[in-house]
Amino acid sequence: MTDVARLARVSIKTVSRVVNGEPGVHPDTAARVHEAIDRLGFRRHAGASTLRRGTATGTLGLVVEDVGNPFYSELNRAVERVAAAHGSQVLTGSSDSTPDRERELALEFCARRVDGLLVVPSGERHSYLAAEQRAGTPVVFVDRPGGELAADAVLVDNAGGTAEAVAHLAARGHRRIAFLGDDAGLFTARERLRGFREGCAKAGVPYDERLVRLHRPTERGVGEAARAVLDGPGAATAVVTGNNRVTVHLLRALATRARRPALVGFDDFELADLLDPPVSVIAHDVAALGRTAAELLFARAHGDTSPPRKVVLPVRLVPRGSGEVPA
Amino acid sequence: MTDVARLARVSIKTVSRVVNGEPGVHPDTAARVHEAIDRLGFRRHAGASTLRRGTATGTLGLVVEDVGNPFYSELNRAVERVAAAHGSQVLTGSSDSTPDRERELALEFCARRVDGLLVVPSGERHSYLAAEQRAGTPVVFVDRPGGELAADAVLVDNAGGTAEAVAHLAARGHRRIAFLGDDAGLFTARERLRGFREGCAKAGVPYDERLVRLHRPTERGVGEAARAVLDGPGAATAVVTGNNRVTVHLLRALATRARRPALVGFDDFELADLLDPPVSVIAHDVAALGRTAAELLFARAHGDTSPPRKVVLPVRLVPRGSGEVPA
Repeated sequence: MTDVARLARVSIKTVSRVVNGEPGVHPDTAARVHEAIDRLGFRRHAGASTLRRGTATGTLGLVVEDVGNPFYSELNRAVERVAAAHGSQVLTGSSDSTPDRERELALEFCARRVDGLLVVPSGERHSYLAAEQRAGTPVVFVDRPGGELAADAVLVDNAGGTAEAVAHLAARGHRRIAFLGDDAGLFTARERLRGFREGCAKAGVPYDERLVRLHRPTERGVGEAARAVLDGPGAATAVVTGNNRVTVHLLRALATRARRPALVGFDDFELADLLDPPVSVIAHDVAALGRTAAELLFARAHGDTSPPRKVVLPVRLVPRGSGEVPA
Repeated sequence: MTDVARLARVSIKTVSRVVNGEPGVHPDTAARVHEAIDRLGFRRHAGASTLRRGTATGTLGLVVEDVGNPFYSELNRAVERVAAAHGSQVLTGSSDSTPDRERELALEFCARRVDGLLVVPSGERHSYLAAEQRAGTPVVFVDRPGGELAADAVLVDNAGGTAEAVAHLAARGHRRIAFLGDDAGLFTARERLRGFREGCAKAGVPYDERLVRLHRPTERGVGEAARAVLDGPGAATAVVTGNNRVTVHLLRALATRARRPALVGFDDFELADLLDPPVSVIAHDVAALGRTAAELLFARAHGDTSPPRKVVLPVRLVPRGSGEVPA
């Protein structure tokens, strides 16, 4: 700033005024300041924030599957709120459920010297972050635990939630219950399937593998899975879905059917209460998930060296109507 | 890396192996490398990306109103895709429709030396970005034009869209049409109101100010506005909403009513087609909005110095049913 002032032959106060867009500076003077800025390549604040924060860059990295998915955008928002309270910004990236892309994003964020990393893991091997972690970049896994790395993880009660969904449907007389989940490569998909099996066993409902489909959810794929479990002999009379993407695709597949199965979906979603019938869900507090993870990350960044923690947040069944369809 | 190798008394190749989590290194050796890394504060990649890209940081800044709003999360995703194709990451922030917060975020991003800035403006004064722009950081406004700054803007045809909604409703016999929009401080809200007025004039439908409400959308506020325009003498028989937040709140307010007005909403939204009746909307391609803006930004970053451009993307009415309710 001193150089700009000298080159433009004005006071530092005047440079500051021009830079901050404040009034009271003659246009010719302002033009001279801008010219000096251009020549020197000076940028407002450059370096200032780093100075203010010691070696911290005031930036967090957040790797999710898809920033466009409402689940992750709500998570993103919650993380942003905690970051803002700590004077930090958030770099976000979508891994598209691809371990390679997750690794690439996470390491790129580290190369930008983020103060900490929140990762919704796509893969299960995170030794690639060991060096970063040792070098002082805390890592917190969100929604799913990481693998091969001792780090904090904030999860929701996946198994408990699906077990509760089965109990809800069994109590309404259902004995043929299908489970349509996400790809079996995902921790959450496997945990929810585990809860589904446990729920069946507990409720005395037969677990039938032919009624279980685990695939990355696409409109077409879920439509095919729906036909497979809902048509023909031994068809399911009720469905538990593994996440909001599966639920939304299934609702579209069911729209043209005369007779609908009972339905309980994992994850709440906007407008679930306004559909006909309103959709019963296993709800969890996505904002709390993001908030808890971000707060844990800042605690680590500020020197908390206690052993890695696994935090499991509760879920709850929200009955709205779609689970009440009798067998 | 050379320093680490020297301190740990190993080859550079071994350091590289340990850092990248590759197998084949004795645990004691790996521990020595990690210790050296800790002592030197070395970080993998640090600085490498900057070197690779000259002075570019490989980071874009994106300021939206709310990363948790599905409209912006879709926009975010589209921007991220273009950024990734250019080897860039995206810093995102939510302004909460507050000009001060928008300014704070935008300048913070500039302080982090982003290669360019995409801003969905909350305010109308952007001279605070003049110095950044002159110093070489391109700025592209998205969804709304900026003010007091010569910069590119990518918009959608707001006025044309609401005018079309009015024509659609007028053709079905409606003469009392309400407009529930966002805060009048927003360019998009004003433009959509302008289109609404023009649409009324063109269709020969009376424009009645008592049927117009412009407020920042909250569930309670939209509920009150709905009662104000739908109850009592001179009530509206049809409603045009100004964005997806207003639409969603209105749908909730209408859920308990025996008789529903016809409805056309600005912005498409997930599940609109599965509601009863399915919601007719003025749709526009949110992904195209983000993509176009991001591509324009990279063109500027790569030296395009042509005069600022205003790009207006088309909208289209998607009739689904809610607009067919007769007067």
